[in-house]
Amino acid sequence: MTHNIETIELEKFKNLDKQEFTAFFNSFSGAKPGYLIGTGQGEDENLAIFNSITHIGARPPLLGFIQRPTTVDRHTYQNILKYKHYSFNLITENFFEKAHQTSARYSKGQNEFKEVGLTAIHKKELRCPFVGESPLHIALELDDDIEIKSNQTRLIIGKVISISIPRTLHNNKYRLDFQELKSMSISGLSDYYKLTKVKSLNYAKPQ
Amino acid sequence: MTHNIETIELEKFKNLDKQEFTAFFNSFSGAKPGYLIGTGQGEDENLAIFNSITHIGARPPLLGFIQRPTTVDRHTYQNILKYKHYSFNLITENFFEKAHQTSARYSKGQNEFKEVGLTAIHKKELRCPFVGESPLHIALELDDDIEIKSNQTRLIIGKVISISIPRTLHNNKYRLDFQELKSMSISGLSDYYKLTKVKSLNYAKPQ
Repeated sequence: MTHNIETIELEKFKNLDKQEFTAFFNSFSGAKPGYLIGTGQGEDENLAIFNSITHIGARPPLLGFIQRPTTVDRHTYQNILKYKHYSFNLITENFFEKAHQTSARYSKGQNEFKEVGLTAIHKKELRCPFVGESPLHIALELDDDIEIKSNQTRLIIGKVISISIPRTLHNNKYRLDFQELKSMSISGLSDYYKLTKVKSLNYAKPQ
Repeated sequence: MTHNIETIELEKFKNLDKQEFTAFFNSFSGAKPGYLIGTGQGEDENLAIFNSITHIGARPPLLGFIQRPTTVDRHTYQNILKYKHYSFNLITENFFEKAHQTSARYSKGQNEFKEVGLTAIHKKELRCPFVGESPLHIALELDDDIEIKSNQTRLIIGKVISISIPRTLHNNKYRLDFQELKSMSISGLSDYYKLTKVKSLNYAKPQ
């Protein structure tokens, strides 16, 4: 079955207002898993929501995310450059509304953990906070900071140092089930989805 | 509520076998929307599955994806360099098993559309195929090809030329609903999830 769909040249969207266009365009890339990025220590401690976490490679274990242009104050980015360590904390159905609230424009002195009511956890030898409410913590060390010349965003790449997962997963051959973890996917800047596992498919071979 | 989770240093995973480690590590970044990338014309026509589509920016409208190291033959990458145009086609519940099958190692002469049974659609002035079964087509033109030095993967950035969406969405202020579209998210290389919309949240402001 093919679809009754209509092609629209990007030109046509020029009469949408700026916010409408941005919201629409932000959704093209699909509903992607939400993570809170924890950075900084003491007065610099910061928590921010992202849905651009990307797998870069397994050997060495690298993850990336997209940082918007740093022409304005970006607390997450500044902290990563300063402390080198940062954390990805999976957002779940249990606290996604608090996680969303971290996107408010708090000033540098305000600590998002306190402002939104999430629990900051600190781990030995890691110079970044973690989110107590999250069942999946990934600790990273800055590996590369690549400027994307097309629009001055940046691809920030980190090497995974350690991960924290529910103890029960050990019996499951370390296979993460994102329905069980209650992972939330975010489309655009505002729409939240939960996941239901449909099927695991085998490694595909030519038939 | 905080979780009963356990921190594991990456060192500890060294005794997992290579495939287990890769499958485990591939899942850290979460369940991400699956897209088929259509490239090439005539004998070069190719279709490949990806879940690393990333929003780069709205002005100009840019999307990226991660291309694994090109030290082996990569038909998608070669076609993008040759034809400059390529398409992202959202994978839905209606054809995700066929989409998965495109990941089999077909040789350069084999056309994945025919091998897996999906419909190639061609659009005027665009040098790439689209997937008839998909309700969301994004046509792109190569904008930048950035090598990630940490592991020789590449961030391929494309400028969106046009999009095709269901006609009904026009009445919806161009807001894409990924539950309605039946978008499928992929974790690791094998686990497929569907999405259920939970809530739309307002633009957050400090309280």
